[in-house]
Amino acid sequence: MDKKIPVAVLGATGTVGQKFITLLENHPWFTVSELVASPRSAGKTYEEACAWKQDKPIPTEIAKKTVLAAGESLESRILFSGMDASVAGPIEEDYANAGHFVVSNAKNHRTDSDVPIIIPEVNADHFEIIKKQPYKGAIVTNSNCVVMPLAMVLSPLDKAFGVEWVQLTTLQAISGAGYPGVASYDILGNVVPFIGGEEPKVECEAQKIMGRLENDHIVDADFVVSAQCTRVPVVDGHTETASIKFKKKPTPDQVKEILRNWKSMPQEKKLPSAPENPVIVFEEENRPQPARDIWLQGGMAACVGRVRECPIGDIKMVIMGHNTVRGAAGAAILNAEAFVALGYLD
Amino acid sequence: MDKKIPVAVLGATGTVGQKFITLLENHPWFTVSELVASPRSAGKTYEEACAWKQDKPIPTEIAKKTVLAAGESLESRILFSGMDASVAGPIEEDYANAGHFVVSNAKNHRTDSDVPIIIPEVNADHFEIIKKQPYKGAIVTNSNCVVMPLAMVLSPLDKAFGVEWVQLTTLQAISGAGYPGVASYDILGNVVPFIGGEEPKVECEAQKIMGRLENDHIVDADFVVSAQCTRVPVVDGHTETASIKFKKKPTPDQVKEILRNWKSMPQEKKLPSAPENPVIVFEEENRPQPARDIWLQGGMAACVGRVRECPIGDIKMVIMGHNTVRGAAGAAILNAEAFVALGYLD
Amino acid sequence: MDKKIPVAVLGATGTVGQKFITLLENHPWFTVSELVASPRSAGKTYEEACAWKQDKPIPTEIAKKTVLAAGESLESRILFSGMDASVAGPIEEDYANAGHFVVSNAKNHRTDSDVPIIIPEVNADHFEIIKKQPYKGAIVTNSNCVVMPLAMVLSPLDKAFGVEWVQLTTLQAISGAGYPGVASYDILGNVVPFIGGEEPKVECEAQKIMGRLENDHIVDADFVVSAQCTRVPVVDGHTETASIKFKKKPTPDQVKEILRNWKSMPQEKKLPSAPENPVIVFEEENRPQPARDIWLQGGMAACVGRVRECPIGDIKMVIMGHNTVRGAAGAAILNAEAFVALGYLD
Amino acid sequence: MDKKIPVAVLGATGTVGQKFITLLENHPWFTVSELVASPRSAGKTYEEACAWKQDKPIPTEIAKKTVLAAGESLESRILFSGMDASVAGPIEEDYANAGHFVVSNAKNHRTDSDVPIIIPEVNADHFEIIKKQPYKGAIVTNSNCVVMPLAMVLSPLDKAFGVEWVQLTTLQAISGAGYPGVASYDILGNVVPFIGGEEPKVECEAQKIMGRLENDHIVDADFVVSAQCTRVPVVDGHTETASIKFKKKPTPDQVKEILRNWKSMPQEKKLPSAPENPVIVFEEENRPQPARDIWLQGGMAACVGRVRECPIGDIKMVIMGHNTVRGAAGAAILNAEAFVALGYLD
Repeated sequence: MDKKIPVAVLGATGTVGQKFITLLENHPWFTVSELVASPRSAGKTYEEACAWKQDKPIPTEIAKKTVLAAGESLESRILFSGMDASVAGPIEEDYANAGHFVVSNAKNHRTDSDVPIIIPEVNADHFEIIKKQPYKGAIVTNSNCVVMPLAMVLSPLDKAFGVEWVQLTTLQAISGAGYPGVASYDILGNVVPFIGGEEPKVECEAQKIMGRLENDHIVDADFVVSAQCTRVPVVDGHTETASIKFKKKPTPDQVKEILRNWKSMPQEKKLPSAPENPVIVFEEENRPQPARDIWLQGGMAACVGRVRECPIGDIKMVIMGHNTVRGAAGAAILNAEAFVALGYLD
Repeated sequence: MDKKIPVAVLGATGTVGQKFITLLENHPWFTVSELVASPRSAGKTYEEACAWKQDKPIPTEIAKKTVLAAGESLESRILFSGMDASVAGPIEEDYANAGHFVVSNAKNHRTDSDVPIIIPEVNADHFEIIKKQPYKGAIVTNSNCVVMPLAMVLSPLDKAFGVEWVQLTTLQAISGAGYPGVASYDILGNVVPFIGGEEPKVECEAQKIMGRLENDHIVDADFVVSAQCTRVPVVDGHTETASIKFKKKPTPDQVKEILRNWKSMPQEKKLPSAPENPVIVFEEENRPQPARDIWLQGGMAACVGRVRECPIGDIKMVIMGHNTVRGAAGAAILNAEAFVALGYLD
Repeated sequence: MDKKIPVAVLGATGTVGQKFITLLENHPWFTVSELVASPRSAGKTYEEACAWKQDKPIPTEIAKKTVLAAGESLESRILFSGMDASVAGPIEEDYANAGHFVVSNAKNHRTDSDVPIIIPEVNADHFEIIKKQPYKGAIVTNSNCVVMPLAMVLSPLDKAFGVEWVQLTTLQAISGAGYPGVASYDILGNVVPFIGGEEPKVECEAQKIMGRLENDHIVDADFVVSAQCTRVPVVDGHTETASIKFKKKPTPDQVKEILRNWKSMPQEKKLPSAPENPVIVFEEENRPQPARDIWLQGGMAACVGRVRECPIGDIKMVIMGHNTVRGAAGAAILNAEAFVALGYLD
Repeated sequence: MDKKIPVAVLGATGTVGQKFITLLENHPWFTVSELVASPRSAGKTYEEACAWKQDKPIPTEIAKKTVLAAGESLESRILFSGMDASVAGPIEEDYANAGHFVVSNAKNHRTDSDVPIIIPEVNADHFEIIKKQPYKGAIVTNSNCVVMPLAMVLSPLDKAFGVEWVQLTTLQAISGAGYPGVASYDILGNVVPFIGGEEPKVECEAQKIMGRLENDHIVDADFVVSAQCTRVPVVDGHTETASIKFKKKPTPDQVKEILRNWKSMPQEKKLPSAPENPVIVFEEENRPQPARDIWLQGGMAACVGRVRECPIGDIKMVIMGHNTVRGAAGAAILNAEAFVALGYLD
């Protein structure tokens, strides 16, 4: 790529917006050229407008950029949306109408029948349905942060053995709630066994992602997910325990072999943010752990451990992924890379 | 009771031993008269021998008592055993042989066919099998700390609807690992998705407890439990998510009503440590929580919340209990109270 | 006392208000008869209006009481104020004008020259200055939660050796920030070396409390406090390291002896909330610790440890106290008890 | 440098040893060629012998290397010692006798009059005293992890204004205690106001480091440090509050300017591990924070914030540094780089 593609970040001052900026620093294809936030931040420099919470400094070339107000016209064709769901819906539509490609992490349009939820390793073919969208541009989304590593694990297993159902319990990190998010008084030394609105998303997004494209619409996969979502005092990294029932019962070794060998489009096309292996399988009985393993392969892999037989389902296992990288900003960036690599920007 | 019954605490300096001493302070029936620990501690005063970790001080009358060595002959008839599993087995047998009633929290004898695992609300009739024991005295155990609230919830539901299987994930507190137990470097801001030896215990103890007594032996109940046990950065209080399949599918309201109305022998006989309601059912969608709810009813109740339908099992719910009170020392004390109330000491 | 004195709680639904209600349950002198909160809560029952965060349930007789709006006329003569500082100022004045005795935990009037900051062990004589107040009733305050244990330690030492200066660093619990207070993302596994507005309070309140009453006004004590206040991931219990310079250098043993033997008016009059010893001195080199020691003497004592020589000041030590009990609601209750015991209510 | 210098890591399987291996991966000058640990580990591959706790995997070329037993003869001239203090003393001497240059993080030899404690920015001239050592090789040490950022801050200020005394309180991370180190039960939601053996080290090492070289021996600087060391539930990053008294009182602005402009030998010679600025000064009132700032400049800088006047000393401030990078393994690596750059290896 001769020249970097300018991109904008919508919701640039928020938690996901900050992660976009951190992950896009030195990106080989994209360069952040426009920062968009609420009217309250507009007109300020980014460093003035933003309560920066990342563990490396604001990139120098970003710090002094002036923040634009959501709604202003933009020059970038690709817009990364880290906007809060309370405002993302119509703003994303307006920009798509104006011809932009909105690569969104917000949940608002995920259930629209003409908006794909993309995991490039799983369903890059779903990009096709954007042609049904009424916009001059398009909206593309990534999944919920719990669904991301789950669908990455289920997809190759479904092809091999057919998934019937998944019983899931999550132990979710606080960064998933944004900022200020969870009050410390509620979570320090505690478990909160409920996350508002989470379980319905977790129980249906994987079926859409793993659905098949048929005459330009998606027919959802027909397995069942039952989720119990909890919040634990961990900063980054969602842990999930899963028991999976298959149509054809595999052995634990077969499951591990398929997961370890799985590679797909992002790996084949060597997309810049693609993990070398989308799924890492541990043999150590006490892994994966968020504090040790979230940064493997740049935070872009799903980590799996304790693959063993289940006396109720067929196989149980522990799944873990970086919720703000592969589960949010990193996912959207990989989606944009796939979008470009597949020629949709041309 | 005119005069208090003298009792001994085996493993008095350890985590569970300290909890016995704290919970037995001002007990209306029992008074701690002998403290037993390893030979290393023997001969010292309790306060010298013990790295006390409770949040109230060592009771004055205990602090200056001289610690006896495990194996020395004792005068108390009832011995509470908080010994570590690495040593508890033969020492408990020796004391039982010598005519003592060992009320143990250790796992060593739980799987012996003639040793009952007692939850007085559930299976006080199982005390009968101690008559099969070869000892002059007897050994009685309580369950694992995860199984305790689980079996308290399953027992009344099994009677009403028949349990087929339980898919369980646990989020366990660090105090369950004793002291020094889990290294802070392993658990601060982390989840460890494995606890050595825990899942096999969790998968089989409830079936023995809920088994039926038949010709002086116990026929295990025949439901299946599949467990995934994790450690989380919580000090006290194990949280469990459960999906339960019944023989006859109940509604969530039926489940809640049965749990709320359940009372049993300890409540009827008003045993000193019995909770008023063995199971507390929450309607708030974000409860129970360990940091808020472990001390309800003196830490002796099982807390239940989020009772709702499951698309795979019939009902899913969150269960939480105080692992070192109802899940350990408090359970043994209630067992001893039941033992006395039912006339086994006479 | 024949009949309990009815009291009101202002700011009843907040963090401090909840603590008042918890600590006043079964109080031998006072009974909570009126609950006052913002107009938003008024008219609701307390349990509807309140996001209860204590680890025991709302007292039954409180749960169904209707919340009154701040400003409404009240029948109770004693009003405990746990209101937020953003609103407490004028409301407390209005109630004092109307003849009530406002025993406040808010900071608003602490610096008024005619409002005493009372620690009954230290300066019960300062109640006298309320006679200078323009109100029909009166306003009495307690100190900041950091100053409380500090002044309890400094006061007897000042009498014996004369305090010149105190170099102080605090490690403060999150409960001091109210609810929602500190975002978990800011404090989980972290230290925040700043607490807005805290250091100025910490550097001047002890001097007023330890000042001498002279012609009905208080002449501040003239020692210097330099404070560095930090927030740490602890739920309850502020830890403080202090280096103290005295006019007359004591030995560590002299310091410990004076602190251990110190008793004062609340102990002599056996006020219901008075700790038996206002200061507890530890010999163990790793105490006091918030997780182990906050509940000693009902959370009403100042805990001191590691008393030793300092090569810069004369003596250094660690001080720890329960910030929401002796440092907030419990302090106000003890103040009200002293107020009554000294006849100010008659 | 044409060819990388082979180095050995002593204590390779421990916490500091692991950090050495992580930080030396891809080092431009050094390559880890020998791994040395206790006889228990000897003969195993590194990945077998080691309970790896870092958040990136064991470097591939290290994982399969066979571990050597401490005491075996080695080929590397430079040995990084991350050995535990309980064994480091004589083993380091033996290797020095055998002609090796031992760059040690252990405390054992720090107080030897002929062993320098080096911070290359501060006292690279102290390398000279190794000529007094009786060994064919030499032993060089780095300071305690608390002293490191403290001395980096004090050194340039001492030159400008003369340090008289420093009143210091530390809030230290658990990783400083090694593994398993602090029990989670002791530190989760808690503060432990004592660290065995720490305060004496903290109170004297800076004076040696900042001492002047006179006829081949070091005359310690003569300021006084008084330390109160506490442990807090933070994984990495020691926070310190300091009040400093100078011979000539500076303004906060003067202090900040000197710290910001300070560069020294490692910066001038562009040593590979040297931070661009040894001291980073924050203007934000709530920084530095361990969770946000430890990785600035690769974890090799001292972070300073809240520089302001002190009513007792002259200036107070908050200092923070990465205790296992600049405070341990990273410090030793920088020392070795300085050692090589100054020609001592030739």
